[in-house]
Amino acid sequence: MPEETREWTHLDQHGRIKMVDVSGKPPTWRDARARARVRMQPETLQRILEGTVAKGNVFDTARLAGIMAAKKTWELIPLCHPLALTAVDVFLEPDPDLPGVRLEAHTKTCERTGVEMEALVAVTHAALTLYDMCKALDRTMVLEDIRLTYKSGGRSGTFHLQESTEDV
Amino acid sequence: MPEETREWTHLDQHGRIKMVDVSGKPPTWRDARARARVRMQPETLQRILEGTVAKGNVFDTARLAGIMAAKKTWELIPLCHPLALTAVDVFLEPDPDLPGVRLEAHTKTCERTGVEMEALVAVTHAALTLYDMCKALDRTMVLEDIRLTYKSGGRSGTFHLQESTEDV
Amino acid sequence: MPEETREWTHLDQHGRIKMVDVSGKPPTWRDARARARVRMQPETLQRILEGTVAKGNVFDTARLAGIMAAKKTWELIPLCHPLALTAVDVFLEPDPDLPGVRLEAHTKTCERTGVEMEALVAVTHAALTLYDMCKALDRTMVLEDIRLTYKSGGRSGTFHLQESTEDV
Amino acid sequence: MPEETREWTHLDQHGRIKMVDVSGKPPTWRDARARARVRMQPETLQRILEGTVAKGNVFDTARLAGIMAAKKTWELIPLCHPLALTAVDVFLEPDPDLPGVRLEAHTKTCERTGVEMEALVAVTHAALTLYDMCKALDRTMVLEDIRLTYKSGGRSGTFHLQESTEDV
Amino acid sequence: MPEETREWTHLDQHGRIKMVDVSGKPPTWRDARARARVRMQPETLQRILEGTVAKGNVFDTARLAGIMAAKKTWELIPLCHPLALTAVDVFLEPDPDLPGVRLEAHTKTCERTGVEMEALVAVTHAALTLYDMCKALDRTMVLEDIRLTYKSGGRSGTFHLQESTEDV
Amino acid sequence: MPEETREWTHLDQHGRIKMVDVSGKPPTWRDARARARVRMQPETLQRILEGTVAKGNVFDTARLAGIMAAKKTWELIPLCHPLALTAVDVFLEPDPDLPGVRLEAHTKTCERTGVEMEALVAVTHAALTLYDMCKALDRTMVLEDIRLTYKSGGRSGTFHLQESTEDV
Repeated sequence: MPEETREWTHLDQHGRIKMVDVSGKPPTWRDARARARVRMQPETLQRILEGTVAKGNVFDTARLAGIMAAKKTWELIPLCHPLALTAVDVFLEPDPDLPGVRLEAHTKTCERTGVEMEALVAVTHAALTLYDMCKALDRTMVLEDIRLTYKSGGRSGTFHLQESTEDV
Repeated sequence: MPEETREWTHLDQHGRIKMVDVSGKPPTWRDARARARVRMQPETLQRILEGTVAKGNVFDTARLAGIMAAKKTWELIPLCHPLALTAVDVFLEPDPDLPGVRLEAHTKTCERTGVEMEALVAVTHAALTLYDMCKALDRTMVLEDIRLTYKSGGRSGTFHLQESTEDV
Repeated sequence: MPEETREWTHLDQHGRIKMVDVSGKPPTWRDARARARVRMQPETLQRILEGTVAKGNVFDTARLAGIMAAKKTWELIPLCHPLALTAVDVFLEPDPDLPGVRLEAHTKTCERTGVEMEALVAVTHAALTLYDMCKALDRTMVLEDIRLTYKSGGRSGTFHLQESTEDV
Repeated sequence: MPEETREWTHLDQHGRIKMVDVSGKPPTWRDARARARVRMQPETLQRILEGTVAKGNVFDTARLAGIMAAKKTWELIPLCHPLALTAVDVFLEPDPDLPGVRLEAHTKTCERTGVEMEALVAVTHAALTLYDMCKALDRTMVLEDIRLTYKSGGRSGTFHLQESTEDV
Repeated sequence: MPEETREWTHLDQHGRIKMVDVSGKPPTWRDARARARVRMQPETLQRILEGTVAKGNVFDTARLAGIMAAKKTWELIPLCHPLALTAVDVFLEPDPDLPGVRLEAHTKTCERTGVEMEALVAVTHAALTLYDMCKALDRTMVLEDIRLTYKSGGRSGTFHLQESTEDV
Repeated sequence: MPEETREWTHLDQHGRIKMVDVSGKPPTWRDARARARVRMQPETLQRILEGTVAKGNVFDTARLAGIMAAKKTWELIPLCHPLALTAVDVFLEPDPDLPGVRLEAHTKTCERTGVEMEALVAVTHAALTLYDMCKALDRTMVLEDIRLTYKSGGRSGTFHLQESTEDV
């Protein structure tokens, strides 16, 4: 869509907030992917990695929190529509070069509206939970690079993040 | 606290996840502050700023979402304790140099445990809602620099973010 | 439907409460509209109206509360079915003759059951939030004339409020 | 408090919405009472009253819905503080002269902020649930006269509804 | 399905927890039934039964709690999909031979995944609420024999509990 | 307390349901413990135990579900008071003789009312989640022996389950 024709979807012509009326759209398959990074002290990452059990449990708790929050996106983001996700996946990968953890979330549904916010909510809550699990070790952790990397389905078509735009 | 004595609070000696037992701690006043940035295309920020009503409404919706989510922190972050916030504040400030919006959240309570996660949840949900409000204009927005900047109260004392550690 | 054939839908033949089994009904488009009034002291309305920003923010907070509550109708009204709204709109209009504020809510979905309760929940929560925002100014505000004004779709057909029945 | 000194508690000096910071207030005992009426066709009231079981079940379902919603007031009304109610009571009384049902709710707590909204939320959700239970019999029911009748505790002192102000 | 081919649905090949991706399944009608028993002192059951009103109210409160919890199954059981139930029914039957109360729940929907957990959640929360209502009379009550008795729909076909397997 | 003086706490003198008014009770420390068993086919237990990762993840997901549900007890059990738990612990132990898994939950708070229901809710949701994780392997699992084993604090004093009463 050419940029100049893009319009506010959550503000009416008087600038008042509104929820989009999606009644006219057919249910179609929608996918979205989002990512995030949790940057931390090298010692913090080491502590996560040094015990297999610890890493598994820390990562699984973060993953569960991301999945459970994604299902509540409509409750958390005021103007999101309620929708029934058919799939939510959250991935966590330690990255010693960061140092920290890279996260990714995939969401899917067959509805009248997209699941970008659901993917962003999933990845963000997994990252926040990771912070919570490790905060007694390190209060300087940073959540960063939280963004949509892909979406498909719906009138606005497919979106792929162009990596050149993201040299943070 | 010297770093080597810091321990996992959410894992027991077998690496199993647990909620911290705060029964032994007295209720004391706790404050926390967290911040975030939403970086966007210059045109997106301009669109937000060009209408007074639009900006007010977009920012107020984000602020409300942050306040409402903070009250649900215990429900969203699996091992957080339920607690009754006495104050939550969310601030949004456009920054043309970013370009984008800078956010800050303050939380306060008198309980047996701190409100760092509440501040992080507030600022994150305000940022996510800002993303949701503007996503039809710009899908490349990035949430970044989400971190704790201050906490006081509790056994671990006061924490102030040292700015030198944050040259992202 | 002739009145004498109307039956309890939430009580079985023994008088026990029950949720209606809507499995046999096809999903069809359903609309509903409800309205409410918040009557207040003339000075209270004046205070709302005298600042453009104040009015915008008070009304938008009420609108958001109405939209968010409508999405939770199935959680609040014990025997309502969970359903996914495709549209919720809440309107607020100051009326100096009342004096006070008139509210209206529209809801829409394509499901096996109607959205009357969702419209009533939306308008009621917007009114309650308006009360909350102004209660430090005026504790004598009254919520009144909360009623369904329209519904369409479903086996019981279309309902239009006959204005002659509502001379409160 | 003299009227001219009454101020917005949910708007700051720039007109931006905010949650009140109650950190400076001591926890004290707070009571509140609110009332509502559901006006209906005489036949609808007769149907409720003609079966003891039916009346008990309809009224108890409404009572439960009111109690359960009161506990969620902080989640429903955006700027309300989370608080732990120590008592919630909801009363329903058929009134053939209305004709309809009169409702009343009492709430109590020992916190830093009042429970007026909790009483209003309780009585409103009981009334909405009554509507839901009877709506197949009568779509013209009206919720009216929803208002605070009493509050005590807190800095603003005791409030008693002056009946002369309520000749609706 | 032969037993040896049965696989974990909530663990991937690395043993990490996951939500099942049901995107590939068509929505079909799904039914489930579950049951439970609350065993209690004979005097406790007698107290429930001796007042018609008491029994009605205790049972109806339990029934409502079961229905309301069933609608929140996706929120309570971490890896369950959100789904919209078209019917939930909860039955309670006093059994002097137990002595105690027998409970049963039926759930139904047309979705991509089954409603077994919804039936189990309904029956369990009705039983827990029964416990709560009577616990001041009897703290030794036991919830037992909570199990699925029937399911139909979906790829795994129909399941009927073989009574010979349940001689507890 | 002698048995004959025990009274309904959730029914008033007319048999109407009510929430207990705990305003008159001082906040004191309250503990509770509850237990449950999930009985399953021997092969099902073997599958859980044969992979360390699988067992850890299945048990941790159940534990998290129990902890998170306990925090929502006031929302799930209609007449429970909202309260802020200071500790929740859930334990799972495989028992080849059952065969199956034994669960236990501990809860603690300093409030005006006890945490028995919180302990029962925790152990029940952990058991339900265990069922959900394993149900593709075995639909005949049974949740049983869900009961309070201990409580202390509050006017009714300490309760210890007498093992002789529980030969199920």
